[in-house]
Amino acid sequence: MFSKETYLSRRAKLKKTIGSGLLLFIGNDESGMNYADNTYHFRQDSTFLYFFGLPYAELSAIIDIDNDKEIIFGDELTIDAIVWMGTQPTLKENSERVGIQETRPSHELEVYLKNARQQGQVIHYLPPYRAEHRIKLLNWLDIYPGTEQPSVPFIMGVVNQRNYKSEEEIVEIEKACIVTADMHLTAMRTVRPGIRESEVAAAVAEVAYANNYQLSFPIIATINGQTLHNHYHGNTIKSGDMLLLDVGAETEMGYAGDMSSTIPADSHFTARQKEIYDIAVAAHEVAVAALRPGVLFEDIYDLSAATIMEGLKGLGFVKGDPMEAVKAGAHALFYPCGLGHMMGLDVHDMENLGEVYVGYDGRPKSTQFGRKSLRLGRKLKPRFVLTIEPGIYFIPELIDLWRSQHKFTEFINYEKVATYKDFSGIRNEEDYLITESGARLLGKKIPIHTEEVEALR
Amino acid sequence: MFSKETYLSRRAKLKKTIGSGLLLFIGNDESGMNYADNTYHFRQDSTFLYFFGLPYAELSAIIDIDNDKEIIFGDELTIDAIVWMGTQPTLKENSERVGIQETRPSHELEVYLKNARQQGQVIHYLPPYRAEHRIKLLNWLDIYPGTEQPSVPFIMGVVNQRNYKSEEEIVEIEKACIVTADMHLTAMRTVRPGIRESEVAAAVAEVAYANNYQLSFPIIATINGQTLHNHYHGNTIKSGDMLLLDVGAETEMGYAGDMSSTIPADSHFTARQKEIYDIAVAAHEVAVAALRPGVLFEDIYDLSAATIMEGLKGLGFVKGDPMEAVKAGAHALFYPCGLGHMMGLDVHDMENLGEVYVGYDGRPKSTQFGRKSLRLGRKLKPRFVLTIEPGIYFIPELIDLWRSQHKFTEFINYEKVATYKDFSGIRNEEDYLITESGARLLGKKIPIHTEEVEALR
Repeated sequence: MFSKETYLSRRAKLKKTIGSGLLLFIGNDESGMNYADNTYHFRQDSTFLYFFGLPYAELSAIIDIDNDKEIIFGDELTIDAIVWMGTQPTLKENSERVGIQETRPSHELEVYLKNARQQGQVIHYLPPYRAEHRIKLLNWLDIYPGTEQPSVPFIMGVVNQRNYKSEEEIVEIEKACIVTADMHLTAMRTVRPGIRESEVAAAVAEVAYANNYQLSFPIIATINGQTLHNHYHGNTIKSGDMLLLDVGAETEMGYAGDMSSTIPADSHFTARQKEIYDIAVAAHEVAVAALRPGVLFEDIYDLSAATIMEGLKGLGFVKGDPMEAVKAGAHALFYPCGLGHMMGLDVHDMENLGEVYVGYDGRPKSTQFGRKSLRLGRKLKPRFVLTIEPGIYFIPELIDLWRSQHKFTEFINYEKVATYKDFSGIRNEEDYLITESGARLLGKKIPIHTEEVEALR
Repeated sequence: MFSKETYLSRRAKLKKTIGSGLLLFIGNDESGMNYADNTYHFRQDSTFLYFFGLPYAELSAIIDIDNDKEIIFGDELTIDAIVWMGTQPTLKENSERVGIQETRPSHELEVYLKNARQQGQVIHYLPPYRAEHRIKLLNWLDIYPGTEQPSVPFIMGVVNQRNYKSEEEIVEIEKACIVTADMHLTAMRTVRPGIRESEVAAAVAEVAYANNYQLSFPIIATINGQTLHNHYHGNTIKSGDMLLLDVGAETEMGYAGDMSSTIPADSHFTARQKEIYDIAVAAHEVAVAALRPGVLFEDIYDLSAATIMEGLKGLGFVKGDPMEAVKAGAHALFYPCGLGHMMGLDVHDMENLGEVYVGYDGRPKSTQFGRKSLRLGRKLKPRFVLTIEPGIYFIPELIDLWRSQHKFTEFINYEKVATYKDFSGIRNEEDYLITESGARLLGKKIPIHTEEVEALR
């Protein structure tokens, strides 16, 4: 946890921004897998972590701006719990470490909120993303699950603090990125024909766990990289395959790294793979070179997409003007996802608060297929931390669908594209900090050019 | 998944047992960690798996006994989902593989249940153990969270099937046990002074993941084995320490293994460690030797506890008659947990359905400290699968508490016990199938005697 002053100043700033009312912070509980006490690893809510720092289950907190109170609600351990879980600092002691003087038993929160409502206080809460949050809102505020109305000022207040990373946060994120890079280097040394995806995933996970870190999201380690959210690890890697690896570590304080690489099964990429791979790298590098404060990230997305279309035009997959094709949305056949996203305490930072607020500063997102998956579109500012991850995918289902719909026939040469339905997909991903004058790579460089990757094989 | 016939016959048997009404099976949903789409690995509800076999999120099912209907409720994938997740078999196809001919969209379940209630049908459901289950019961049956009244006949019907493992289930459990044994063998080769607990935990997890298995419960890998539920992995192992490892693998079909071992940091146990360790092994072996149909498991627990007290008497920790001390509850100072538990699709099988039903056949459990933690007390029957895991722990907080309360001074020599407050704890654990005439070890033998463990170091 950071020093007490960090949490005190974060809360003071938020209070000043919101001005009045009562802010309710719902911490996370343990999540049972197949029965209540067989739990997944505990993950605290990131906003709770940001303002209150305590990584323990069954806590809630309020900042009662009107009455100038900050209280953490939770229960002290019983002797039975100490026997099973060992001696722990008390909630009171833990709370003092984050600058909170007042703690109260859990059951008092309901009463506190009831009184606040009776006195006409506005109670602000954030969007619930777990079923347990919804039940708490039902119990405490009579809000029926599904009818919640989260507070937009609260959301914007949180977003406008968490989007700008402090020096001490950048140090933490960089730790996550270094371990994340090590996970990729391990995979590059492990992948070979005959090994199973699950073995690569296991070797990669081990790197995070050995550091006492968690995974910041479920591992993608697949020879079917064209399937964007593929968590199946049951295939055996064959000669001629590529493994798409998208993994990230999460530090003990909860900060995330997130990188991707595409690794040939054999010691070298095939000529056919290299042609496409080089285009993906060009799109990556054009995006990285464009990173600086003041630039609209959506423009960088266009640039990366146009680079892909231009490269694919050179190979005969597409025709016409590349940027025109991008504006029309034709690139989404190959590049149906975004260029990158904010990263911090969440790998997709604050996704639960809404991408429009986090990544678009309140501006509506596009609804166009492909572009709608761009999680970040706003003007860049110093201290933003984000990923760069353009990719090229040959998705058989999408190719068949668009072809049958005669979609974008002015830009796409379906004859040629159809011969690549077995190609799979390519993505590389790095993490960057926007600086005053440009951008800085976080963590350490992992191989990205084909010759660099091949040198490790 | 097993063959269609397995699921058909399991459901037929359950229908016959319950006789009338409507049985509601709530499958599990994805669980978000720090936002909705950043999910833990998916785990289906075990009873849903047992009767309907499908390991997918957002499914429910009913067996409407009165109207002779079996229906799975769920939604087919959209084209957007296929682009992100690849082509999948349809819900209809999947359901046919488990002998279900009728599938309906999710939203129709609420209507179906409403009609059933209007027609006066009894709707049976099991205890909810996830917040999402409670919200579903609220939405479907107007049951306010916390006021659920699960059906005891349904619970007993499920327990009386799942407690008796079929041949094909035993094959699956044995697969889990073999990988679990490999996890322990890996740890025995990995542990050494200077290595961190997290590195051992990571190496052990890798074994499960490389097999495309999951962990059946969170890893315990600790030099503080006296803390029974210790998931902290931040310590570095020092010379003179012992690492208590309690881990299990879960097969792709969801069956669990669960074993423990206690590994010296150095190549050999110290003389002080060996004295206590040998007593734990004696308690283990006396329990294993007693396993056979017809024996009350609680009697075997007493036997193992008395063996521990007798051994500790020989070392001067306790005095008086060992079995008398056990009946009084004095053994719980050293052995505050149970001897074992049922194991199957859950590592603590059906813990969500209630230990009184699963482990005591409806007989009330003891409330005595120590004995109350015995999850299994009933008469053993062929086809039960259970763990054997007596242990000896020196828990400083408990020693101080009991000593200050002058508890069991007729049996306990606190002077001597106090000199062992830094000893930590010892546990070995194996998995057994009760056969017609005795019991059979599941999986493969892992070293348990000190010389066997030391031979691997």
